Amino acid sequence: MNTADTMRDCLPTLDAPDIGLPASAPPDYRDVLAAATRIAPHAHVTPVLRSRSLDALAGCELLFKCENFQRAGAFKFRGACNAVWSLSATEAARGVVTHSSGNHGAALALAARDRGMPAHVVVPEGAVASKLAAIKAYGATLHPCAPTMSAREAECTRVQAETGAVLVHPFTDPRVIAGQGTAALELFHQVGLQEPGGLDALIAPIGGGGLIGGSAIVARGHSLDMQVFAAEPAGAADAFESLRQGRRVADIVPVTIADGLRGTIGAINLALLQTHRVEVLLVEEEEILAAMRLIWERLKIVIEPSSATVLAAVLRHRDRFANRRVGLILSGGNIAAPSII
Amino acid sequence: MNTADTMRDCLPTLDAPDIGLPASAPPDYRDVLAAATRIAPHAHVTPVLRSRSLDALAGCELLFKCENFQRAGAFKFRGACNAVWSLSATEAARGVVTHSSGNHGAALALAARDRGMPAHVVVPEGAVASKLAAIKAYGATLHPCAPTMSAREAECTRVQAETGAVLVHPFTDPRVIAGQGTAALELFHQVGLQEPGGLDALIAPIGGGGLIGGSAIVARGHSLDMQVFAAEPAGAADAFESLRQGRRVADIVPVTIADGLRGTIGAINLALLQTHRVEVLLVEEEEILAAMRLIWERLKIVIEPSSATVLAAVLRHRDRFANRRVGLILSGGNIAAPSII
Repeated sequence: MNTADTMRDCLPTLDAPDIGLPASAPPDYRDVLAAATRIAPHAHVTPVLRSRSLDALAGCELLFKCENFQRAGAFKFRGACNAVWSLSATEAARGVVTHSSGNHGAALALAARDRGMPAHVVVPEGAVASKLAAIKAYGATLHPCAPTMSAREAECTRVQAETGAVLVHPFTDPRVIAGQGTAALELFHQVGLQEPGGLDALIAPIGGGGLIGGSAIVARGHSLDMQVFAAEPAGAADAFESLRQGRRVADIVPVTIADGLRGTIGAINLALLQTHRVEVLLVEEEEILAAMRLIWERLKIVIEPSSATVLAAVLRHRDRFANRRVGLILSGGNIAAPSII
Repeated sequence: MNTADTMRDCLPTLDAPDIGLPASAPPDYRDVLAAATRIAPHAHVTPVLRSRSLDALAGCELLFKCENFQRAGAFKFRGACNAVWSLSATEAARGVVTHSSGNHGAALALAARDRGMPAHVVVPEGAVASKLAAIKAYGATLHPCAPTMSAREAECTRVQAETGAVLVHPFTDPRVIAGQGTAALELFHQVGLQEPGGLDALIAPIGGGGLIGGSAIVARGHSLDMQVFAAEPAGAADAFESLRQGRRVADIVPVTIADGLRGTIGAINLALLQTHRVEVLLVEEEEILAAMRLIWERLKIVIEPSSATVLAAVLRHRDRFANRRVGLILSGGNIAAPSII
C-alpha cells in the first residue's frame, strides 16, 4: 500500500458513527460474566500466543490474545453476539440494524445468521468491496446510502421505522461493551490470573472504546492494581485528548492506517476510561507498521493494522513495561491478502 | 511477486543437496516415539486450527497442524532438534554441520544453540539475505561457497575435516526423519485418533521427503487404513515420477514458488513412501497461490508457499476427500513480510 492509497483511505471512519443515542447505564463486571455465558456456544475461545524473541525485544513478558482468530475475524463478534442473543424473541423476529462497513457489520450479520434472524447493514457508497462481500455472505441485507453521516443516520432510521429492527451500535451499546469484555476475561483465565505471575498490565487498541471499555471493566473486576492501557494512533488521538481535556473531543479528523481505530470515542466509553483509570498511549504510524511486521514475522499470524498498535505502544513505552507481564489484545485480522501471494 | 521474480528465484534448491551419503537404516515408529520424548523440552506443541468456511469449501473436515508456529518457523526444528540431542557428549562438543540456506539451516543453528554446541552452515553465495541473517542470529558459523553443488559438498567436507562436526542432512538423516514424524504424532494425539472420528487421511508437503517420510511411519504405526498423501508441486514432480517409475528420478529441474519443495527426493525417503503406501498428489502453481490466499484469509495465519500445497491438493482432488476427516500439515511460515505492511 503506498502513501497515496493510505491517505485516500483515511476518510473519517465508517465504523464509528457519532450518532445521538439515549444515554445508557454502563455495563459492569456482572454484565461481562453474563455475556461470557451467553456467547459461549457461538464464539471461539481464541488462543494466547507467546514469542521468546518478542519478549527479548520488548524486555517484558508478552501474552497475545488472538482475536484475529475470532469468528468473522475480529473481537467484534463477541459484542455483536451478546447483543443478538440478549434480544427477546419478539425483538429478534424484527431483526437488528447497524451502520458499518467494517468488522462490526460483518460480525452483526454473522451473529444474526446464527440466531436465524434478519440483519440490516447500512453501508455508505464507496465502502471496500471485500468487506461488503463479507457482510453479504453472512446473509445481511445491505442498504446503500450516500457517504455522509447524515445520510447514514437517515437511512438507519428509515430501516428501523420500516422493519422495527433493533439498533446495535458498534461501541456505545452496553450489550456490545459487555460482550467485548469477554476477550479480556478469557485471557485472564487462560493465563491464570489468580496464580503468582498473573498479569501486571493489560493493553488493547482504542477506536470508539468498546473493546477497551469492556476490558477495563474486567481488569478492575479482577484487580485494583493492574495497569490498563489503550493504544491509540497519534493520528486519531481523540481518546487521548478527551482524557487530557476531561471532556469528549469529537472534532479530530483521523489520519491513520489503522482503519479500525478511526472512530471517535463514545460518551459512555469515555466515562468507562475515566472510572477505571485507563491510560492512553499514543503510537506513530511507522511504529504501527514496524510492529505489524514483527508480529507477522515472529508470531506468524495475520493481523490488521489496528491490532499492531498494542505492540507498538509497548515497544515505544518500553520503560513502562520493563520486566512486567503484559496482556495484549490483538483485535482482528481482516486485511486483504497482499499481492505477493 | 510477479512471474519474473518467481522464475528468477527458481534455481535448483539450496535446501536439498543431492549428496552421496552412506545408506542408513530407515527409522521406525519407535524412533519417532523416542524423538518425541527427546525434543519435548525444546520444541513447541503447535496448535491444530480449523475453519468452518474452509470445511464448507472443501466438502470435508480439515484439521490444520500449524508447524508455522514451530520454533524457527517450520517443522524442520523437530528433526534438527532430534539429531542434535541424539549426539553423544563427545560428538556434541565437535558440533554439527549442514549445507542449507533455508529452514533446515536455521533450525539446526537454533537446536545447536539450545545445546550450547557449535553449528556450521555452508551457504552458497547469492542466498537470501534474510535467511542468512536468521541462521547467523541463532549463532551458527556461516561458511560461504560458490553456488554449485560440488562447491557446497567440498566446503562441507572441508568443515567436517577441520572441525570434526557431525553432518546432519536435511532429509535423509534417519534422526531427522524420526524428528519430523513427531508433528503427525502430536496431531494424532490432539485430534483423538483412538476415538470415533479419528483421521481418515493425512497429507503433508513433499520436498526431499523428510516430513512425509516421518509422517507415513506414524500413520502406519497407528492405522493400516489411513490414507497418506504427499502434496507436490507439478513443477517439481520428482517424487511423483519416482513412484510412477519405481526408481529415484533425480534429474528434474524444479520450477515452483514453493521454495521449500524444490529438493529431490532422497533414496531412503522414496523407500519409506513405497513401504508405507504414500500417494503423491500434484498441484499447479496457481492452485498453490489460491490456497495460500485462502489460508491467509480464513485461518489468519502466515504460511510459506510450501505449506499451501496441502490445501491445494485437497481442493483439487475434492472427490478423494469428500466427507472425510483430513489432517493437513502446514510445514512452515518463513516468508518475507510483503511490502503492504
